[in-house]
Amino acid sequence: MIDAKEYLKKMSAELDGPIKSYIGDEEPKVLMDASKQYPYAGGKRMRPAMAVACCRAVGGNGSKAVPLAVAVEYIHNFTLIHDDLMDEDEKRRGMTTIHVGYGPATAILAGDALFAKAFQIIADLDIPSEKMRAVLQYVTKAVWDLARGQQMDINNEGNIVSEEVYLETIKLKTSVLFAAAAAGGAIVGGATPEQVKAINEYAIELGLGFQMYDDYLGVAGDSSKTGKSVGNDIRKGKCTCMVTHTISVLKDQKLLDEFKSILGNMDATDEQCARARQIMEDAGSIQYNLDLAKKKVENAISKISFLPESEDKEFMIALAKYAVDRDV
Amino acid sequence: MIDAKEYLKKMSAELDGPIKSYIGDEEPKVLMDASKQYPYAGGKRMRPAMAVACCRAVGGNGSKAVPLAVAVEYIHNFTLIHDDLMDEDEKRRGMTTIHVGYGPATAILAGDALFAKAFQIIADLDIPSEKMRAVLQYVTKAVWDLARGQQMDINNEGNIVSEEVYLETIKLKTSVLFAAAAAGGAIVGGATPEQVKAINEYAIELGLGFQMYDDYLGVAGDSSKTGKSVGNDIRKGKCTCMVTHTISVLKDQKLLDEFKSILGNMDATDEQCARARQIMEDAGSIQYNLDLAKKKVENAISKISFLPESEDKEFMIALAKYAVDRDV
Repeated sequence: MIDAKEYLKKMSAELDGPIKSYIGDEEPKVLMDASKQYPYAGGKRMRPAMAVACCRAVGGNGSKAVPLAVAVEYIHNFTLIHDDLMDEDEKRRGMTTIHVGYGPATAILAGDALFAKAFQIIADLDIPSEKMRAVLQYVTKAVWDLARGQQMDINNEGNIVSEEVYLETIKLKTSVLFAAAAAGGAIVGGATPEQVKAINEYAIELGLGFQMYDDYLGVAGDSSKTGKSVGNDIRKGKCTCMVTHTISVLKDQKLLDEFKSILGNMDATDEQCARARQIMEDAGSIQYNLDLAKKKVENAISKISFLPESEDKEFMIALAKYAVDRDV
Repeated sequence: MIDAKEYLKKMSAELDGPIKSYIGDEEPKVLMDASKQYPYAGGKRMRPAMAVACCRAVGGNGSKAVPLAVAVEYIHNFTLIHDDLMDEDEKRRGMTTIHVGYGPATAILAGDALFAKAFQIIADLDIPSEKMRAVLQYVTKAVWDLARGQQMDINNEGNIVSEEVYLETIKLKTSVLFAAAAAGGAIVGGATPEQVKAINEYAIELGLGFQMYDDYLGVAGDSSKTGKSVGNDIRKGKCTCMVTHTISVLKDQKLLDEFKSILGNMDATDEQCARARQIMEDAGSIQYNLDLAKKKVENAISKISFLPESEDKEFMIALAKYAVDRDV
């Protein structure tokens, strides 16, 4: 069985060069520097790896999907730059965020520039124009949905939404870009429309599981590894599946009031956050979230059973499992 | 001779419907409302009109260029939303700006969403995929350059740059999107690569003249018509061609010191701004700027002499002249 983390590392090493090759020394330097910081600094590279793996898994030449992989990684980083500015986060991957380091105006422009560069790269893909158009349709729809998802996330904060709304939000905020990477890679690799659709669904389900596990790490992860303060999501009142579940199953009004009084309270102490976490644990909500995340990943894997056996298919399966079994 | 303003009005009336048809009632409503506000509110519609006119002027079916015209207008409005946020402007076209009305996070997302929608529309253009790819290459390059130009503009503010740097900045900030609209329209209309290149150059020159005339209106226009406070550009220390010229020709050190003390002084009185304007006038800089703007427009018109006579060619010529002869 392939070790997803090791395989990702290997693919990252191959993708790092291309990722660092599309932004040159144009003027103004400050904008180029700001645009390069996130994509050049690394990360898990799950999305670009997925684009290349899906291309190869359908029998395509992986090198043809590399520029698309870069484009998707730039889009991911464009959204990170804008999200960090909106959320007023000061650190990412141990570095100062773009708006803190370069000011908000340059952060907005660096995001816009990466976005534009991503589509320049897609326009120049070395594949027939008809296929390029199909890739473009997936990716543009994904970016539209990303903006919708981020706005929903903002609207949800501090509110209790239904599990249905929660799932729709994370689908737009996280899954659609995974799915565009996967579907795009499959198109570049020569997949049929039915195959592209199935691979797209694989990545949608994987993305849901990934985000639910991210939420789990946010309240129960090892903060020395994740780099996230464990109480953060609770203080922000982030409406995760765990919160939704706790609210819906808790019958003890006093306990429910206590839980709600901590949730979204920016001044909550670490003890209070631990207490909220315990209430979710006792309500079975953390387990419920984990079980649902794993169910999504099982769905994801079932979608690609049609693929012939290959190392890349194995990686796609391992990556789905890794999405819900990681410490960072 | 065609009256550009009247013709623009007529084309606006035809384009308003399509411009209002691409953003539906998806969730979240607040993002849809914020994204619609600027493009739905009107404006001169110069860029979309240019796309359609260039398509027809090369013998194409103008209706095929309408979606491209909408996409270019959305891109223009995406940059306006982000620019207003960066500049902390509170009013546009008499309305509250997006970041003031909806908050900065939604303003960032509304810009991103319009940007994504523009490329979704281009991906769906009803033209052969090979042509769509060519349009995409022009437009993506333009958006990349727009971000560079806006960053240069920020860098220039409060500094005296050379005329060369000034012209490069306004080319990126203003001309490239005009040029993408014009070249894109010509491609949709079936122009040869040489024709596309010439029409692209026409719009680059037109854009330079347009922006130089905009700068002129900024210091010498009728603020009751332009809606811009006449001292604004002077207080902000905006480095226009007029400022650059004054600095380079003024030999009287005392006068030069006085001019520089007003320029970029946010607390300058209306009298001081009027004085700075008078110094530029006496130095011949306002006339120099006007002459150069008109020269750019002459260049623009000369680029399209190859086009057969038609109402659309006449409009393209009239539009170029209008760029440097308008009160708003």
